[in-house]
Amino acid sequence: MYQKIIENVRTRKPLVHCITNYVTVQDVANMLLASGGAPIMADDINEAEEITSICGGLNINIGTLNERTIKSMIAAGKKANELGHFTILDPVGAGASALRTETTFHLLKEVKFSVIRGNISEIKTVANGSGTTQGVDADLNDVVTEENLSEAVNFAKDLSRKTGSIIAITGAIDLVSDETTTYVIRNGHPIMSQITGTGCMLTSVIAAYGVANPNQLLEATAAAVCAIGLSGEIAREKMEKTKGGNGSFKVFFMDAMSQMDDERLKEGARFEIR
Amino acid sequence: MYQKIIENVRTRKPLVHCITNYVTVQDVANMLLASGGAPIMADDINEAEEITSICGGLNINIGTLNERTIKSMIAAGKKANELGHFTILDPVGAGASALRTETTFHLLKEVKFSVIRGNISEIKTVANGSGTTQGVDADLNDVVTEENLSEAVNFAKDLSRKTGSIIAITGAIDLVSDETTTYVIRNGHPIMSQITGTGCMLTSVIAAYGVANPNQLLEATAAAVCAIGLSGEIAREKMEKTKGGNGSFKVFFMDAMSQMDDERLKEGARFEIR
Amino acid sequence: MYQKIIENVRTRKPLVHCITNYVTVQDVANMLLASGGAPIMADDINEAEEITSICGGLNINIGTLNERTIKSMIAAGKKANELGHFTILDPVGAGASALRTETTFHLLKEVKFSVIRGNISEIKTVANGSGTTQGVDADLNDVVTEENLSEAVNFAKDLSRKTGSIIAITGAIDLVSDETTTYVIRNGHPIMSQITGTGCMLTSVIAAYGVANPNQLLEATAAAVCAIGLSGEIAREKMEKTKGGNGSFKVFFMDAMSQMDDERLKEGARFEIR
Repeated sequence: MYQKIIENVRTRKPLVHCITNYVTVQDVANMLLASGGAPIMADDINEAEEITSICGGLNINIGTLNERTIKSMIAAGKKANELGHFTILDPVGAGASALRTETTFHLLKEVKFSVIRGNISEIKTVANGSGTTQGVDADLNDVVTEENLSEAVNFAKDLSRKTGSIIAITGAIDLVSDETTTYVIRNGHPIMSQITGTGCMLTSVIAAYGVANPNQLLEATAAAVCAIGLSGEIAREKMEKTKGGNGSFKVFFMDAMSQMDDERLKEGARFEIR
Repeated sequence: MYQKIIENVRTRKPLVHCITNYVTVQDVANMLLASGGAPIMADDINEAEEITSICGGLNINIGTLNERTIKSMIAAGKKANELGHFTILDPVGAGASALRTETTFHLLKEVKFSVIRGNISEIKTVANGSGTTQGVDADLNDVVTEENLSEAVNFAKDLSRKTGSIIAITGAIDLVSDETTTYVIRNGHPIMSQITGTGCMLTSVIAAYGVANPNQLLEATAAAVCAIGLSGEIAREKMEKTKGGNGSFKVFFMDAMSQMDDERLKEGARFEIR
Repeated sequence: MYQKIIENVRTRKPLVHCITNYVTVQDVANMLLASGGAPIMADDINEAEEITSICGGLNINIGTLNERTIKSMIAAGKKANELGHFTILDPVGAGASALRTETTFHLLKEVKFSVIRGNISEIKTVANGSGTTQGVDADLNDVVTEENLSEAVNFAKDLSRKTGSIIAITGAIDLVSDETTTYVIRNGHPIMSQITGTGCMLTSVIAAYGVANPNQLLEATAAAVCAIGLSGEIAREKMEKTKGGNGSFKVFFMDAMSQMDDERLKEGARFEIR
């Protein structure tokens, strides 16, 4: 497994339309390039559908959403669905403000997403908008741990069933799940949360991997999560060796993703299937 | 002094709402993380107040202001005042256009700021909007020097009295002042002005330090200025050693801030109190 | 030749008003500083003309254009023309959407540009809006090669005549042309397209070089193209030596531009004049 997923990305160079936040957008573009894809950013309603049409996939990230760009997200999402394109939602901060929560619900209602990626808190908000609330908030708190792992896996499968999307929940332990199968991934390092945009970058990489591997979306999503986590591990090791800090980590992280291939991923990926 | 200021930041991980320019926003987010805080960027009027409510402090930077975001700045600022949150203003380019000058005046009228940080030219514009014009423009030109230092210190104290804010004026010599006490700081290196956003990053670090040290705001602000200056010195030395240029400097600068602690700061801070 | 072009930039520190996309804006600002210039970003209609007035040049990049910023581009462009300032257009994605193509035509109609820089596909779109379509699309495909070089040179000269602008077409082979003289430049490396914004950064550097060398705009534009390409070569070599990837390349690229001077450029520039 993972045999040719990255090779496919590097060969097919999938073009991804990103309507994303202005905080991490430059790293998102660079990470898409480093992973073998290519980015186009366009958020005006007068070109959102047209730009999506020339791309292979659409990445919607609500990080610095506003009334103007929300309209473009909906329009681009509908067009991407119409064309059968890969679509991914990154509901940044869903639950933190009514605007973000409602926009997430609005997007889920109007657009069908191939993948939804967020941290556990954001994904729980997604679940609230999908009628999957029962019993969730009570037991599944802010982190996925070894203790609540079974419950989290069931939650992910259930949410995948409700939404029809692959669900990627990232944190200390990452889960990538469809209705029946969950990848439990243990790559990564806590320092990854000490630079901004690791999540946004991962979402864009999932888009590239997904567009280039349309017949194995679950595996491609899991591979992207493993690759980003593994790159974080490699970067952290280099950072320690060079006695660097957060600045060096970010450079090495981008280096590692640009040098990632299927073989390295196979060696370094740490996951189990449930 | 400075004994536990950084430790407090790293322990309390203050969340700072930033309404800031899109030029330097990514480095601002990364610098907040490197200094021990955490960023949330949100500039839409429909969530500005709500996001501010869940944060410990508010950072308003008018760098790429527009009609839409100015409204959010005012709304968030008022809400932060209502909640007694730490607030900081970075009046980027005040004086360079009527829009920036008027927005600065508007913000000063509607919002009470804990700290105002800018270069001497921006702070003089702030003073013009606060009735502190007399005698300022004549003698205090574009830089604070050893020659005009006494006058600059008096100007800073006077402006702090008029605004009720701590005033941070940064340049070759930095001043951090309340009504009675001024820190004259001599950390830093000219190369810091050769990368964009050093000022914006400092403002966000002051916010993190201020939120985490509410009972010693003047010391916390001075500590942030010293820490950023000292990190610039450390980064410049590494840059020279590795024969790097501006790109390397920026990486090392972020490294140094992520590795800063109270002990290193105590050793490297160069200031006098007037 | 190239004797003092960079020295002039470093001495005169030209201030460039950029209305540019939010994807690469931070690297654009840093590259302007690294090359010896200084950036001001301002895209609100209420200050666009005023900010342009205090600058030496104007850089318009339509990368993430929207209705609000298009108006500011037109207003700033007209004001810059009125004041006789250096102006440059980077028609990012012209041809990829009707909005971008029409905005490019609109800008070309309302504003006179000193230089227009793009890849061959974007510049062909510019040509379509300037009545230079004949025979172009048929033979000049997506890349300038040794085989179609003569035709490309003629195309560039013709377009320069039609627009009254210096035309810079970048790719594996770069062309910088006025009506009668074309620099054919062979600096650079394919990895430069693996980080986002190399084109946007080059455009801003042309602006700095152009503003500082008003009496030799063609040479200054060619020098900027050579300098960026040479910096890419230097960075790539360092990247190989340190076994780095895309992240390291970007750092070394910025380093190289900040260390560039006329002597190094003279040694490393590879071009012929046709």
